Amino acid sequence: MSNPAYIAVDWGTSSFRLWMLDRHGDVLAERRSGEGMTVAAASGFGAILDGHLAAIAAPAGLPVLVCGMAGARQGWVEAGYVDLPAPLDAILTGAVSVPGQTRDVRILPGLAQRRTQAPDVMRGEETQLLGALTAFGEGAHRVCMPGTHSKWVEVDGDTVQGFSTYMTGELFDVVTRHSILSHAVVSDGFDDNRFGAAVLEAWEKPADISNLLFRARAGQLLHGLPADAARAQISGHLIGLEIAGALEQDDEGVVVRLVASGRLQTLYEAAFATLSIACTTIDADEAVRRGLHAAAVSIWPLTR
Amino acid sequence: MSNPAYIAVDWGTSSFRLWMLDRHGDVLAERRSGEGMTVAAASGFGAILDGHLAAIAAPAGLPVLVCGMAGARQGWVEAGYVDLPAPLDAILTGAVSVPGQTRDVRILPGLAQRRTQAPDVMRGEETQLLGALTAFGEGAHRVCMPGTHSKWVEVDGDTVQGFSTYMTGELFDVVTRHSILSHAVVSDGFDDNRFGAAVLEAWEKPADISNLLFRARAGQLLHGLPADAARAQISGHLIGLEIAGALEQDDEGVVVRLVASGRLQTLYEAAFATLSIACTTIDADEAVRRGLHAAAVSIWPLTR
Repeated sequence: MSNPAYIAVDWGTSSFRLWMLDRHGDVLAERRSGEGMTVAAASGFGAILDGHLAAIAAPAGLPVLVCGMAGARQGWVEAGYVDLPAPLDAILTGAVSVPGQTRDVRILPGLAQRRTQAPDVMRGEETQLLGALTAFGEGAHRVCMPGTHSKWVEVDGDTVQGFSTYMTGELFDVVTRHSILSHAVVSDGFDDNRFGAAVLEAWEKPADISNLLFRARAGQLLHGLPADAARAQISGHLIGLEIAGALEQDDEGVVVRLVASGRLQTLYEAAFATLSIACTTIDADEAVRRGLHAAAVSIWPLTR
Repeated sequence: MSNPAYIAVDWGTSSFRLWMLDRHGDVLAERRSGEGMTVAAASGFGAILDGHLAAIAAPAGLPVLVCGMAGARQGWVEAGYVDLPAPLDAILTGAVSVPGQTRDVRILPGLAQRRTQAPDVMRGEETQLLGALTAFGEGAHRVCMPGTHSKWVEVDGDTVQGFSTYMTGELFDVVTRHSILSHAVVSDGFDDNRFGAAVLEAWEKPADISNLLFRARAGQLLHGLPADAARAQISGHLIGLEIAGALEQDDEGVVVRLVASGRLQTLYEAAFATLSIACTTIDADEAVRRGLHAAAVSIWPLTR
């Protein structure tokens, strides 16, 4: 068995993932929890990290590389932003050290688009993107990274030209939990056919989104729309809206580079298929690990 | 002073308004409170009504006419829906009596559009519409009734052809309270210039709404966007989206009939002016009272 060389952490708003890796980037141990920035800001970032390191018996002195919201202003230590356009490897030199730790702990910066009319920020996805880059090949690419705040990124070679955030996941969350629509979706089920139809409806008339969403409620009242259909319909409307915003209707021949895993991968692949939009998928979990590895080998010698 | 003839109540999801009127529809007393359906479903509709009637010393035996969410399935007594298309005065014959009351209490039905692809419902706005109808004049009209769930209604003469609900007010509420945007809007202030600019942005690219909304957060992080500008921007984006959904970009020469009062009237008039869309305003408070009066005189002789 190879020696552990470093620890990689993807610390998001609501999730925490940690890997212990050897110097080739192979995984020796893994931890996942819901202790994202929101939890950690209350209970302490250092304590949460130490707990997970103890649980996998991480050797003393092993350095730790972190990406994601731990570097936000409300996070652990602010890691700033690299301004666009910029080559992706600019994030490698922007890592900041967390003071007062017994280990060498560093946090990677995010990316910022400072255009006054379309300001935007990301934290964590830039590291995923760095890991996915080699899979894209040369030239210009349109990258879709779905999530709570989906990112659509324009990459040209190794340079990020610009990006747009779509609040798809968070809108789904707030309308299904806190609005009148919550009455229509009391189920964990999901109607795949209704999902596809809803993607198409929003793609064809995105301006009607706040009416399309209400149809889940009206459909329940008037036609007994089942909760699993309502849930799928709201999801499909919001994902269809996102794609309508990110791509032009006449964007012929585009191949979307989808960086996703698990449930989101399934939904977005189904949405693109419904709209006859070509896409190739890169696994998001692998991509973030590969990105953290590329950063780790550039920061530390990793000779162990 | 003229004699009280009946009580009119507009009982919405989150608001309660009651008037004591004479047989000409002139107001003799008024009550307003936050005891909407949500509160009343917990504490009891009858008790709330009796409390307000006692506070204005309403004579025993005075009948009570109610419109709005009190007639919903989760309300006091379900008052059903009149199916579209229908003449508006069809709601007059659909009132249901509330059993077990010492007074004659009736609740007006709502309107339902049962189109499978665009199901929709309203409760309360149909009574406003009945009261506003005389101000419109002959012919076809596009009516905008802003609110938590804005209604855009197609009226032809006295017939309602169809309508669409836009969840504008509720989306504003959930994203400014429960999403990441809540950090950007911690202020009650409102930047009118930013509002107008945001209306135009959403009107021009409604498909981008879930990106436009996020700009309030990114603008705060990158450019120190003030909270009153962020609040106005989110409001403008959502109202611009609604108008983009309800009207076609090439809807030349349309005159929108706006049924609104107070703050919403100000915002929607400003939005229409920004987009160079003609509108005439009918006061919503007056309209609902006039609608309830038209219903009351058709239900009861009102000879007192």
